Amino acid sequence: MRPHPPLDPADWDAFRALGKQMIDDIADHLSGIRDQPVWQPVPEEIAASFETELPTTGRPMEEVYEEFRRTVLPFPRGNIHPRFWGWANGSGVPIAAYGDLLASAINCTVGSGANAALLVEQQVVNWLGQALRWPASGSGLLTSGASMGQVIALATARAHRAPEVRAEGAAATGVQFTVYGSTETHHSVDKAVELLGIGSRFFRRVPVDADHRIDVAALRAALRADREAGLHPLCLVGNAGTVNTGAVDPLAELLSVARQEDLWYHVDGAFGAFAQLLPSRRALLAGLSEADSLVCDLHKWLYLPFDVSCVLTRGEGDLEGAFRSSADYISKTARGPAAHPLSFADRGVEQSRRFRALKVWFALKTYGVDGFADAIAENITQVAHLTKLVEAAPDLELVSRSELNIACFRYVWPGATPDALNRVNRAVLERLQTEGIAMPSHTVLHGAFVLRVAHHNHRTISADFDHLVSQVQRLGAEQVAADGER
Amino acid sequence: MRPHPPLDPADWDAFRALGKQMIDDIADHLSGIRDQPVWQPVPEEIAASFETELPTTGRPMEEVYEEFRRTVLPFPRGNIHPRFWGWANGSGVPIAAYGDLLASAINCTVGSGANAALLVEQQVVNWLGQALRWPASGSGLLTSGASMGQVIALATARAHRAPEVRAEGAAATGVQFTVYGSTETHHSVDKAVELLGIGSRFFRRVPVDADHRIDVAALRAALRADREAGLHPLCLVGNAGTVNTGAVDPLAELLSVARQEDLWYHVDGAFGAFAQLLPSRRALLAGLSEADSLVCDLHKWLYLPFDVSCVLTRGEGDLEGAFRSSADYISKTARGPAAHPLSFADRGVEQSRRFRALKVWFALKTYGVDGFADAIAENITQVAHLTKLVEAAPDLELVSRSELNIACFRYVWPGATPDALNRVNRAVLERLQTEGIAMPSHTVLHGAFVLRVAHHNHRTISADFDHLVSQVQRLGAEQVAADGER
Repeated sequence: MRPHPPLDPADWDAFRALGKQMIDDIADHLSGIRDQPVWQPVPEEIAASFETELPTTGRPMEEVYEEFRRTVLPFPRGNIHPRFWGWANGSGVPIAAYGDLLASAINCTVGSGANAALLVEQQVVNWLGQALRWPASGSGLLTSGASMGQVIALATARAHRAPEVRAEGAAATGVQFTVYGSTETHHSVDKAVELLGIGSRFFRRVPVDADHRIDVAALRAALRADREAGLHPLCLVGNAGTVNTGAVDPLAELLSVARQEDLWYHVDGAFGAFAQLLPSRRALLAGLSEADSLVCDLHKWLYLPFDVSCVLTRGEGDLEGAFRSSADYISKTARGPAAHPLSFADRGVEQSRRFRALKVWFALKTYGVDGFADAIAENITQVAHLTKLVEAAPDLELVSRSELNIACFRYVWPGATPDALNRVNRAVLERLQTEGIAMPSHTVLHGAFVLRVAHHNHRTISADFDHLVSQVQRLGAEQVAADGER
Repeated sequence: MRPHPPLDPADWDAFRALGKQMIDDIADHLSGIRDQPVWQPVPEEIAASFETELPTTGRPMEEVYEEFRRTVLPFPRGNIHPRFWGWANGSGVPIAAYGDLLASAINCTVGSGANAALLVEQQVVNWLGQALRWPASGSGLLTSGASMGQVIALATARAHRAPEVRAEGAAATGVQFTVYGSTETHHSVDKAVELLGIGSRFFRRVPVDADHRIDVAALRAALRADREAGLHPLCLVGNAGTVNTGAVDPLAELLSVARQEDLWYHVDGAFGAFAQLLPSRRALLAGLSEADSLVCDLHKWLYLPFDVSCVLTRGEGDLEGAFRSSADYISKTARGPAAHPLSFADRGVEQSRRFRALKVWFALKTYGVDGFADAIAENITQVAHLTKLVEAAPDLELVSRSELNIACFRYVWPGATPDALNRVNRAVLERLQTEGIAMPSHTVLHGAFVLRVAHHNHRTISADFDHLVSQVQRLGAEQVAADGER
């Protein structure tokens, strides 16, 4: 007869021993991460090992773990390394990984019901509201990411303006909504507008000024033209930190426009919202806390492990207005686990929800919000340091600066053509990355391929940026020579 | 001067010690879970402790962990306990919690890029396809849950039928789509239809037969009527295990209807799809593997910790057709981490994605798919055992049976009125739950409030159901006496 329970460890002592081995290995790996390459390609024979068929019978858990150590651990994305500043990936606070271990072990789902997990999530959402100077009457939901947050915010905007659309749909009502944001708005907003059936063509991408901030006069003109054309402006999206350059739209001015024009005002603060923790950045972000909805990613500039984000709404019940549904199998009882009035499942898309609040709770209690504010301040200081280094270097050009944590620059030389500049800077980036030196990412600004440093990394020291600059200079010179560009 | 890095442990040895303490505590907690109450209310003074303000300064991590042990651990949802069979929550395989620990420690995001995490997710999606007898040409994506899977599947259906809707929206095209499924379809499908702007009124809830399976003649009539009314049938949803009773729609017959009527065929296999692992259930599920899209929840009947689900599509590129987008900051390079052609972010809503594939990889390698098939078979056997006990008891009534893992029943007595039956069975459920005895959930079938056992629990032994039955009989009798019903 088969022992019970079959999918629990047959030997709990062996399970303990393996777990403790993992703890030691994690501590070794994280404390020694600086000595590893930032990134390296997956060798072909290792890549092939991921092409095996579905395993039918099991293997000792220790063997599976050894395979992980050999085939997965050395070939990561790179974002926990102190010289990773690519895309918008955070570095990951180690204590939060323990929060995730506990969350997966006790395995609560946080949809509804009377249990401590629900109270932890409620507390964490309240804390985030306090940190972001959000009104206490507001409400919120932890989500997998800002992309989901944009979907939830826009659906909430639509349900607030036109509650009948939930049942009647967009075609039957015949109303064509429009949404507004700058050309620098993250593509997740396009995706949300598409998903909701509004049509990405009706997301009006308003031009930006030289600092990549939305042109408010152009916005007003677009609104006027759309109203004259019989369209129905629904929502204005302000950027608290654009993904390309970290630009912050004039949020307070956009708030005025939204109020005058009776638009839902949504702020995409995917990474930038947490600059609210710094008194020195509050003037820059003025208006953010008066929005109707706000998204922020805790797995970016709050350094928590993936995935955890938050969508906040200003009006109590706003989210429920868009997402509450009913079914006999989830109806309430008078007492017991189904009696609790709060249901996070009624605030968004998901019914089953991971207990992702626990890692946030652990991290905020362990470091305090001031610990996170200090790390954010340091990131900003370090990007200012990088900016100065680039400006002082005759063979480097600063292409964008930010009051937050993003800088874009490139290698330049006299007489360079635009094509040659792009070619050489591409090659420089690829060598930085494939040689495991550092991981900025790239973007294209006014046709120029640039190295993009987006700094949400609590492990970086200033000397890492000195190293980056000198390596870009060395690689740029080598690449120009190799390409016969000069 | 502040030490670097500020959000890493100041003392790695203390970090190791705490992690090992957690490992020991987890092993104690999970191996001893049978001796705990299934559920207990959160005491008022503990609940109040979750109402404190945002912490500004930090505290020792050991203190935070002690607070977790005191205020969170004893007051869970209940679903890891051997006598929890409520809603559709899985029990959680311990080895997978280690997968989540490692995933959070190494903190890869799995959107795109050349790294081992991407290869693991690709392998896991392929494995799930093999397990569910999905065609090798198909494609897929791990998601947070089936709710997200329904959204992705329906958006994919719409983009496949009418690619212009992504840009033009639903109102401008003027086409009114309709979606079909039985009255027993999970409410997440309504939510998806609403979110997409199709309108939940255009989700046609087709009546069911006595066994809670869709009435195919009524479906054909609904399709005919809608076409005559100028509407555009888009998608047919088949249920592989309804949430109320575990009914399986005639999936092969629905496949024929979908092909004849040129509909996208989506199967909601949130929990039921994994019965495909058992040869004895393949006839019941015939047609499932020929669908255009399928969702399944690994955190239900594959016993993995929340959250992990999968959406599979039949046609290569189907998901990309609905979700691919472009932006300069995520464009590809010729070499390096941004060179890999695969992008999971192009298959769904999310750009940042947790490395949830790792726990699946760990669990499937450790137990093999046969280990999971055995557990599923045992759940089915145990529900059949429960069903027999209920049928043999004169004071119990079996209200629904299933060839899968759900049974609904209630306490009855001679001369009972419908109201009294509902009142007493509510009271029985509340006492089972609040006294920590067992956790079935409830639903309403043909007006009857019933105890609902949905069994996705690898820790249950048959004697647990003997205990459930005897306790329902005891509590039912006590409740009838107390209420003066007899």
